[in-house]
Amino acid sequence: MFFRPAISEAIAEFLPEFQKVLGVSGVSTKESILRQFSRDEGHFQVSLPSVVLSPKCTQQVSDVLKVCHANNLPVIPFGTGTGLEGGSVCSQGGVCLNLREFVETPKVYESDFVSSVRPGVTRLSLNEHLRNTGLFFPVDPGADASICGMVATSASGTNAIRYGTMKENVLNLEVVLADGKILNTRGKDRWPRKSSAGYNLTELFIGSEGTLGVITQATLRLYPRPTCFSAAVCSFPNVFSAATAVVQLLQLGVPVARIELLDDVQVAACNAYSNINLEVSPTLFMEFHGNEENDLIDQMKVVEELCISNGSRTFKSSTEPRRMKDLWKARHDAFYAALALRPGGKGFSTDVCVPISRLAEVIAETRLDLEQNSITGTIVGHVGDGNFHVIMPVFEDDPEEMKKIYEFSDRLVGRALKANGTCTGEHGIGLGKMKYLREEVGSNSLQLMRTLKLALDPKKILNPGKVFI
Amino acid sequence: MFFRPAISEAIAEFLPEFQKVLGVSGVSTKESILRQFSRDEGHFQVSLPSVVLSPKCTQQVSDVLKVCHANNLPVIPFGTGTGLEGGSVCSQGGVCLNLREFVETPKVYESDFVSSVRPGVTRLSLNEHLRNTGLFFPVDPGADASICGMVATSASGTNAIRYGTMKENVLNLEVVLADGKILNTRGKDRWPRKSSAGYNLTELFIGSEGTLGVITQATLRLYPRPTCFSAAVCSFPNVFSAATAVVQLLQLGVPVARIELLDDVQVAACNAYSNINLEVSPTLFMEFHGNEENDLIDQMKVVEELCISNGSRTFKSSTEPRRMKDLWKARHDAFYAALALRPGGKGFSTDVCVPISRLAEVIAETRLDLEQNSITGTIVGHVGDGNFHVIMPVFEDDPEEMKKIYEFSDRLVGRALKANGTCTGEHGIGLGKMKYLREEVGSNSLQLMRTLKLALDPKKILNPGKVFI
Repeated sequence: MFFRPAISEAIAEFLPEFQKVLGVSGVSTKESILRQFSRDEGHFQVSLPSVVLSPKCTQQVSDVLKVCHANNLPVIPFGTGTGLEGGSVCSQGGVCLNLREFVETPKVYESDFVSSVRPGVTRLSLNEHLRNTGLFFPVDPGADASICGMVATSASGTNAIRYGTMKENVLNLEVVLADGKILNTRGKDRWPRKSSAGYNLTELFIGSEGTLGVITQATLRLYPRPTCFSAAVCSFPNVFSAATAVVQLLQLGVPVARIELLDDVQVAACNAYSNINLEVSPTLFMEFHGNEENDLIDQMKVVEELCISNGSRTFKSSTEPRRMKDLWKARHDAFYAALALRPGGKGFSTDVCVPISRLAEVIAETRLDLEQNSITGTIVGHVGDGNFHVIMPVFEDDPEEMKKIYEFSDRLVGRALKANGTCTGEHGIGLGKMKYLREEVGSNSLQLMRTLKLALDPKKILNPGKVFI
Repeated sequence: MFFRPAISEAIAEFLPEFQKVLGVSGVSTKESILRQFSRDEGHFQVSLPSVVLSPKCTQQVSDVLKVCHANNLPVIPFGTGTGLEGGSVCSQGGVCLNLREFVETPKVYESDFVSSVRPGVTRLSLNEHLRNTGLFFPVDPGADASICGMVATSASGTNAIRYGTMKENVLNLEVVLADGKILNTRGKDRWPRKSSAGYNLTELFIGSEGTLGVITQATLRLYPRPTCFSAAVCSFPNVFSAATAVVQLLQLGVPVARIELLDDVQVAACNAYSNINLEVSPTLFMEFHGNEENDLIDQMKVVEELCISNGSRTFKSSTEPRRMKDLWKARHDAFYAALALRPGGKGFSTDVCVPISRLAEVIAETRLDLEQNSITGTIVGHVGDGNFHVIMPVFEDDPEEMKKIYEFSDRLVGRALKANGTCTGEHGIGLGKMKYLREEVGSNSLQLMRTLKLALDPKKILNPGKVFI
């Protein structure tokens, strides 16, 4: 299943140097440990890392990179391993940089709505830490990913429609470059809300998937935690009517915080997995944030009318936290619910994103494609953004099945690109989407990306074989 | 006052080549024309351009750049000339690329809330074009700047607090690189709301001030035009109390669309210039957007209570469009009102931005500094972002005066940097802020910016002598 790559022998001779930087406990070549860091939550199986290094501070990251840079050793940064495109798996061995142990209490600048976190801090742990401040960090990809990992993949999730993606919510980054140099993209200890001072280095690293530098600190925008919530669940006769309702809602400027579409197959999977009891048809999950319960009740009336005028069959709303929590738990568990349709399968997730005017037709064609090719797959989407996933439980050891799945993925991406969209809205390119990048961005943009890669990492030691080969 | 630089002779021999690309009417060396393109709205006087070229399409921009690239001729892109930091003035002659005549009817994708514009399209002309769609483009720096120019300087303005700056509102860019290659940062004809496909080339060009490429099309996010507006004007005993009110408002999550602070000197200047009659003391101008008048009335009550509890002396609010228009016109004319304090003076504007918790103290110290050094200057700020300007009418031919002004600017930037802020929130580095960049971002970040510049423009023909030398 895994192979031990040749590079591991080359790396063996540097273990004493790494131990000098990290201590004996920070360097591991145990097979059980290597296995832990050999894959993410996607379906990719490639090679074991040669060694797992666990730095605990920026200086250690820098010192490790200096050794690797001097000796041309590949370095693959690894956060929580919750990615889906193989962005943090080793494609041919190398140094796995385990950043989970690089933890520090988040710094919080309350009056500024700002927090700075180290790579070991996850989304949920940050929000737990912020609990008593009345503030929160909204970007929510579902998994309890590390914040710095979310920066690296340009993550977003269910409430990007209201609060934006990572790109809109990072103010500054501390980054260690390939040669070990440390920099702060906006300068050390700076967190103005905006700046026009020189190039946007922050955004250059957001979504760079570990290929341009190692992110060792992220300074984030926080938001006041809303005091009132309401949620609605609303089923539709088909995805067309559901998507039309979404477009109209957005046009009215209703400040929806989350708006998620589950197709009938996904709803059935969630019913079974999460023990809920929804009508099995295309369904919108919506959430609204506000400061006054009355405002939310008024909004809900507008939303209900609009859904009904688009053929909605059931509309249930609630401002009762417990009921809402169950619903959103079911939505967050959609990935695992889909996997449970074929026990033992690994998750293959697509991630196209199209302009919202094209969403309904692209989803409808995709559902038809799944049926015609007898592929088990659910559709779930952040429809306010035009981003949706097909989640397919696959058996990666079956080459015939994988061929069918890859062909499906090719057709889906082709459809998205034809509809002015992208092959990845939030998961990143990683290993899985490399073949689509040229067609999507064009030769000149791809060449510019390569130029940037070579300018920042001329020895190509950072996460080799990802994004573009 | 101006000199004709030596490079003009070198360029003279290429005029026939430029005429072949642009026709005779697209190439001008008339002194009256050169003068028009020799300065922006700031105080910089440097050299005349050697020639003004007026391309009307992307291919012409590309062909011009090929000639310039092959022959090492400097190229300075020029939009509406409404910048304040000299970013589009020629520092030593060269080819001024006048992009005002590159106009095309904006493409509007209504259901997607998206529009694509060419460089000749200004902010107001776009919004005029969108009038019947119920949509608008919100970024509003005051001047009627070209949208592509606003991309180049990473502009923002009065309502960034609600809608974000250019960085949050550009989905795709068409760019011509130094060697004439054309690319689309997100791929041709693509406008998904978000994407994680490869590096963020879009953001690399936002704020690059013409030094990395020439922006020939910007694809923008639009927003539903709010159906109800309300505005409030509220005076405070001092800037501390005004700034404290702002922080509390933000903490409450009141969705304010604009929140602007004018100090007492600016209020007096506006009274005189715009014939309004405000109490002469630090004043907040606020605007709120909504879909229901009742919501706005409720919000206004919250805001009023909060202002009064912070010592506000007068609070006037209105939902009457005409009255509001006058007030915002006065705010937008603040720059000219300040200039009118010394007839004949040119505008020297500072642009620091600090975390909001430090805003009150930095403004108070700055006001004291102005008084102690007998400098005529007004303070006006986008306080929701922590960004404020000191607008000083100056006589640039008086070296003693300019020395005093530059020393003041140095102290102000020093104060902002010490308060975790930036030397420029929205005007860009241009010529005026180059000396502050290293201290702000640090040597390694500055070096990385240089590396990027060299990677994209190895011959350094694009807007030479700007951002960093």
